[in-house]
Amino acid sequence: MKKSKAGRTPRNALYAQSGGVSAVINASACGVIEAARKHRNRIGRIYAGRDGIIGALTENLIDLSRESPATIRGLRYTPAGAFGSARFKLKSIEQNRTEYERLIEVFRAHDIGYFFYNGGNDSMDTAWKISQIGGTLGYPVVCVGIPKTVDNDLPVTDCCPGFGSVAKYIAVSTLEGGLDVASMARTSTKVFVLEVMGRHAGWIAAAGGLAGRKPSEPPHIILFPEVTFDKDKFLARVKQCVSDYGYCVIVVSEGARYADGKFLAESGTTDAFGHTQLGGVGPVVANMIREAHGYKYHWAVADYLQRSARHVASKTDVDQAYAVGKAAVEYALAGMNAVMPAIKRLSSKPYRWKLVPVPLSEVANVEKKVPPHFITEDGFGITAACRRYLEPLIGGEDPPPYRDGLPDYVRLRGTAVRRKLKTSFQV
Amino acid sequence: MKKSKAGRTPRNALYAQSGGVSAVINASACGVIEAARKHRNRIGRIYAGRDGIIGALTENLIDLSRESPATIRGLRYTPAGAFGSARFKLKSIEQNRTEYERLIEVFRAHDIGYFFYNGGNDSMDTAWKISQIGGTLGYPVVCVGIPKTVDNDLPVTDCCPGFGSVAKYIAVSTLEGGLDVASMARTSTKVFVLEVMGRHAGWIAAAGGLAGRKPSEPPHIILFPEVTFDKDKFLARVKQCVSDYGYCVIVVSEGARYADGKFLAESGTTDAFGHTQLGGVGPVVANMIREAHGYKYHWAVADYLQRSARHVASKTDVDQAYAVGKAAVEYALAGMNAVMPAIKRLSSKPYRWKLVPVPLSEVANVEKKVPPHFITEDGFGITAACRRYLEPLIGGEDPPPYRDGLPDYVRLRGTAVRRKLKTSFQV
Repeated sequence: MKKSKAGRTPRNALYAQSGGVSAVINASACGVIEAARKHRNRIGRIYAGRDGIIGALTENLIDLSRESPATIRGLRYTPAGAFGSARFKLKSIEQNRTEYERLIEVFRAHDIGYFFYNGGNDSMDTAWKISQIGGTLGYPVVCVGIPKTVDNDLPVTDCCPGFGSVAKYIAVSTLEGGLDVASMARTSTKVFVLEVMGRHAGWIAAAGGLAGRKPSEPPHIILFPEVTFDKDKFLARVKQCVSDYGYCVIVVSEGARYADGKFLAESGTTDAFGHTQLGGVGPVVANMIREAHGYKYHWAVADYLQRSARHVASKTDVDQAYAVGKAAVEYALAGMNAVMPAIKRLSSKPYRWKLVPVPLSEVANVEKKVPPHFITEDGFGITAACRRYLEPLIGGEDPPPYRDGLPDYVRLRGTAVRRKLKTSFQV
Repeated sequence: MKKSKAGRTPRNALYAQSGGVSAVINASACGVIEAARKHRNRIGRIYAGRDGIIGALTENLIDLSRESPATIRGLRYTPAGAFGSARFKLKSIEQNRTEYERLIEVFRAHDIGYFFYNGGNDSMDTAWKISQIGGTLGYPVVCVGIPKTVDNDLPVTDCCPGFGSVAKYIAVSTLEGGLDVASMARTSTKVFVLEVMGRHAGWIAAAGGLAGRKPSEPPHIILFPEVTFDKDKFLARVKQCVSDYGYCVIVVSEGARYADGKFLAESGTTDAFGHTQLGGVGPVVANMIREAHGYKYHWAVADYLQRSARHVASKTDVDQAYAVGKAAVEYALAGMNAVMPAIKRLSSKPYRWKLVPVPLSEVANVEKKVPPHFITEDGFGITAACRRYLEPLIGGEDPPPYRDGLPDYVRLRGTAVRRKLKTSFQV
């Protein structure tokens, strides 16, 4: 193992992915790994947790030095979580000290001095907790969070890597699906409903609004989680659209809800974070329209397709995802603990941005929703200000290479790091 | 109006789109119009029926001479039906002579000598009936069918324009969605169901099979309309997949059905052709799995997104769609009536093909299903022979131009042709 100029063996780095994956989270991994490889005198080996933090807890680590530069480069255009991700929220140190002690045990065994945690809201909370173990439990580690969420609900940062690509996918799909319906509406489907993700924040639904520039152009109606669903008002608008334009295209967020807070569609199960698992608001809305007006309808539920659609990723998003990964390493090497690189917008047209470090404590557990001035007064569309904000985020194309008609995504060898501990850990 | 060498004013051409639209039907229109424009001495004006055959019956025609060459060129990369399409099946001449007499009235008023009808199974039947009105009703018209159907169920032709692009979309989506599920399966979703189109023929579902090359790679299970659904066998296979691979990805055709012929999901309504309207087999299958095994699941319904996804079209498909449009004009000018250009495969690797004229009577009302030797013995996958057939059809990329992050699809001016008839027609 190389020694630094000072003669000390450089400490190793651990990278882990967390929460729902995206089309560009691996681009952030690529940024981390390529940046770390440039500093071999300061960062020793680079490991990844298999299935995220669970890999760290169970000493199930992937040795990234076994991956070729071409494979690492390929992560930039490969969607989903190449190392495995997990929905696993650490409790506070007071509530579950065992987990933190186990983490330290694994960190110590593998001389982990840098921890990079790539995730969303809940994950920045976990990253913040881990960043504190130097002070509370006496193990020195530099912990830097790397933003990732398709929901775009992290505060402080202008936007969140992962969002731009899902936004582009939804805008493109709304445009294309809208053209389809328009061409058949006279004798066939009059109403098309596209269900999109976004549990509490309607950013993805808002992105559908980019598809049209005039009231006559789809989507004619957007249903946001931020706007209380009013059935009568909604049904009246649908009827008006069909009367005025011959058809009606609706983009509905999975988080659309009634005045009492109840989601339009609740499947009744909950995920590991205790959030209600949603799905199926598309057919619920379509059926509501059929019952009221009898129009022929179709509905689509993009589900995972929207967040894994690397084939239609936004170049801006890919560039930002890579940049936050790279910056995380630079921040760590500059000795910054408990921070996250945030995107700061310098101008919208042309879109210019830079990265700035922000304390994890400012980011963790805060949800950024679509603000009122981004939603039209009737609650069914996006304003010009919203369009100005969103448009640069879907800008540019960055198609993956193709082979035999399909994207040529890379797969890791995923060589395991030899275990050093005799103890195991149950998650 | 130009006169031909022989001194006669050249007769006009009418183009109409029919049935469900596709990502490349406008590429066929582009082929027709560009080819016709090269023969101004033989073909006078080029019109399109607004909303397909309905435009012809109601004398609602679009004057394509008012569209710029750039707009016509742009049709090559613009999805859905730019002129409007319709699900409207003509009865036989014996059953509804009025419709044919009205068509002739409109044709005569606008001196239509060439009729190009761009559609699928039902539409080739209509094209054939119209091709016969010269003999039966004494109005001379050359009628050429242009194949179009995302379902790929037309006989004789190697494949059908529209299918290659939806096949590519579904293969890419299965690949990407599969990577998403794989990366989260340990702590989250174990089962992912993607519902695809294909009422009676499982070609689109089969295309999902291109995403994986090994049994461990998604999709793990394909449900074809051609294979009777066996619930117990299916549920056992799902369990085996989750046990062997940690997760299970399923591509299910909307036409999947039980032994008694009943679709897994029937919404109970019918379309204009009398076909049962389907939708929702995805959630039905997902729920079946939850009830039996309790796995956490997600499902997606691509619906119209799959057939309008020009952004990820197959170049082979676009080329073929353009070519059949162009060939239709050439056949018509060669005096061939009641034919359709069919694609004849010359070799699979490399993929080489040519066009040959086939009689409409051989094509109309015949459905080409996925043959048994294309489906694995267990009924859940595609064979090597099927892969050899399908792979060339998704080959090559042909992305549209983008502007501000979105495909820059063209819109027609759609100038109406001045009506010449005093009579109207109720459709």
